[in-house]
Amino acid sequence: MVHIGIADTMFARYDMAKDVIDVLEEFTGRVTYERYTVPGIKDLPVAALKLFEEKDCDIVIALGMPGPKAYDKMSAQVASTMIGQCQLMVRKHIIEVFVHEDEGENDRHLKQIMKDRARKHAYNAVYLLLDPAWLTARAGTGTRQGQEDAGPVNA
Amino acid sequence: MVHIGIADTMFARYDMAKDVIDVLEEFTGRVTYERYTVPGIKDLPVAALKLFEEKDCDIVIALGMPGPKAYDKMSAQVASTMIGQCQLMVRKHIIEVFVHEDEGENDRHLKQIMKDRARKHAYNAVYLLLDPAWLTARAGTGTRQGQEDAGPVNA
Amino acid sequence: MVHIGIADTMFARYDMAKDVIDVLEEFTGRVTYERYTVPGIKDLPVAALKLFEEKDCDIVIALGMPGPKAYDKMSAQVASTMIGQCQLMVRKHIIEVFVHEDEGENDRHLKQIMKDRARKHAYNAVYLLLDPAWLTARAGTGTRQGQEDAGPVNA
Amino acid sequence: MVHIGIADTMFARYDMAKDVIDVLEEFTGRVTYERYTVPGIKDLPVAALKLFEEKDCDIVIALGMPGPKAYDKMSAQVASTMIGQCQLMVRKHIIEVFVHEDEGENDRHLKQIMKDRARKHAYNAVYLLLDPAWLTARAGTGTRQGQEDAGPVNA
Amino acid sequence: MVHIGIADTMFARYDMAKDVIDVLEEFTGRVTYERYTVPGIKDLPVAALKLFEEKDCDIVIALGMPGPKAYDKMSAQVASTMIGQCQLMVRKHIIEVFVHEDEGENDRHLKQIMKDRARKHAYNAVYLLLDPAWLTARAGTGTRQGQEDAGPVNA
Repeated sequence: MVHIGIADTMFARYDMAKDVIDVLEEFTGRVTYERYTVPGIKDLPVAALKLFEEKDCDIVIALGMPGPKAYDKMSAQVASTMIGQCQLMVRKHIIEVFVHEDEGENDRHLKQIMKDRARKHAYNAVYLLLDPAWLTARAGTGTRQGQEDAGPVNA
Repeated sequence: MVHIGIADTMFARYDMAKDVIDVLEEFTGRVTYERYTVPGIKDLPVAALKLFEEKDCDIVIALGMPGPKAYDKMSAQVASTMIGQCQLMVRKHIIEVFVHEDEGENDRHLKQIMKDRARKHAYNAVYLLLDPAWLTARAGTGTRQGQEDAGPVNA
Repeated sequence: MVHIGIADTMFARYDMAKDVIDVLEEFTGRVTYERYTVPGIKDLPVAALKLFEEKDCDIVIALGMPGPKAYDKMSAQVASTMIGQCQLMVRKHIIEVFVHEDEGENDRHLKQIMKDRARKHAYNAVYLLLDPAWLTARAGTGTRQGQEDAGPVNA
Repeated sequence: MVHIGIADTMFARYDMAKDVIDVLEEFTGRVTYERYTVPGIKDLPVAALKLFEEKDCDIVIALGMPGPKAYDKMSAQVASTMIGQCQLMVRKHIIEVFVHEDEGENDRHLKQIMKDRARKHAYNAVYLLLDPAWLTARAGTGTRQGQEDAGPVNA
Repeated sequence: MVHIGIADTMFARYDMAKDVIDVLEEFTGRVTYERYTVPGIKDLPVAALKLFEEKDCDIVIALGMPGPKAYDKMSAQVASTMIGQCQLMVRKHIIEVFVHEDEGENDRHLKQIMKDRARKHAYNAVYLLLDPAWLTARAGTGTRQGQEDAGPVNA
């Protein structure tokens, strides 16, 4: 049995946690989870740390949607750096699921990316814990989340 | 009873702490607070650390107004990174309330953003401590501080 | 009695430490100081750490003049980040007094900025230790070092 | 006998680990290895840490292919920074083998770079552990991985 | 007697360590040294850490030549950041001698910069340990390595 933390934000414009939970429910009996919501992406690193230290999570899925402006990009870089720092502190993975708002051409497209990236990374988180060979079998294959797989080099 | 630290700067062109305090006064009996002022945003991270370690704060609200020039942006990135580092050291949230001076089209607009962002994040800080479910109920809804909510994707 | 460290560089084109010392001498009897010079700004963070740990300083004033080129800007960012890291390690303030060489329109202007910023931050350092209320009284007022105060928003 | 960790990603579009393993097999009897695959480059730092701490690796080769977009570049910077942090934590080398997707003019070229860089860095990793003088003999000679050597300055 | 570490790379196109050693030999009887070569600049921080912790160095001179492309610049920033982190860990100076390949207008100029910067910083490293007043005497004078001194402001 593994315990998965979900950290998400009020800032994001789509509720990716619902999709993550939908995937995790497929693994009932082997996976439990809990959720912690914060205002924005820069609040995610310590939220993840709390999920690890106070809630005994084995992995955390960190969901965020950086905005399109220059200082949003800077916030994303700070958040990612500290998510990296947190992982080294606890020796556990945080699967960062960030969708930049300007990745979407419109709201419909943005939602589609967020849904797809959240679901696929939920599987990645589960398999990292329960079946790491699943990932090795896909190493170097151009696997993508939020879009079609790029596939391996065609050469 | 929770104790909230307010760290702010002489550099900022509007006294956001007053608005934060105004909100916190609504919670008298459940919330106490104290304030520590430093010269500029790069002085905020250790100010927050002192509020946690020397004043037993449960959360810190860090108020700053980065200037419009390239090196001001760099200062903001350094300050945010170290605010992130501080949170991981103490395992507690710092709610960063930064308003870039060039977010405002004029002084009137700048003040309006600063006031709104400070007040809304003061509520966020209180609810993170006293009622975290309040935030989860708003997860993925495009909540904003300093401007109108963006709202969820319309798709 | 407080002990103030001054860390400065051979790279800078004006001796800001002299101005800092001139201000600190006004506080004789309440303030002592010592100085440590390094080649450039990236050497300042560990210089500050040594002033704290080997010389028992209560605060450090770090004086530097980043050059105008892209890699000088990068050096400034690295130096500022590590100055931030050092503060969190020792739980004490480092007042960073950086003047970018291209802030000055000419040598005369550059010197004027460096002199003014160094002197005003020397007062900031002293008051942070001896009279923190002095800073709170100026919170949110658009106080500047190296130029005229910007003043509060006019709205 | 030294033990080498290989950390790689599903995101990369070519399986560089195969080339690394091919090189390491030349050192059978003196080198053992194991592999750990993660979704993308930001997952590599903690993967490396786990290879050091849970699998007793003496060095880790971290294989990744950052994408061509601005946020891919940002991910690469975060990943590299945390790979640096991890090395300082464990006091051991991580040989970072990153090939930016846009280094390749086409798939054929990209594969050629990835193959060459992976193989050459596999030798570097082995010699760092088994024969450091091999590297000193090549100091300052403009050695490259993923392309022809630049060679020493011609002056 | 002080012990100086020299960390350098195979990537650089000129052997700066030879010039550093040439300078250090002038101090025979007061200075000893040793050298450690790694593939590229991102390998320098942990190389320096090993020189401090495994070889008891009192200071390290880190020699590198970042390439001219955008990702080379990013590597330089990561390397410098981690060189800064390493200094704070060990409480000792690392004198970073980086020459960006595009500082040189041609190979001849590049070599001249590398030679000059390496030699001058070798003196800086020695004097930081043996005669710190030598540096203070030059504080704020616009001292440069790799080019003519800029000199103090002319105002």
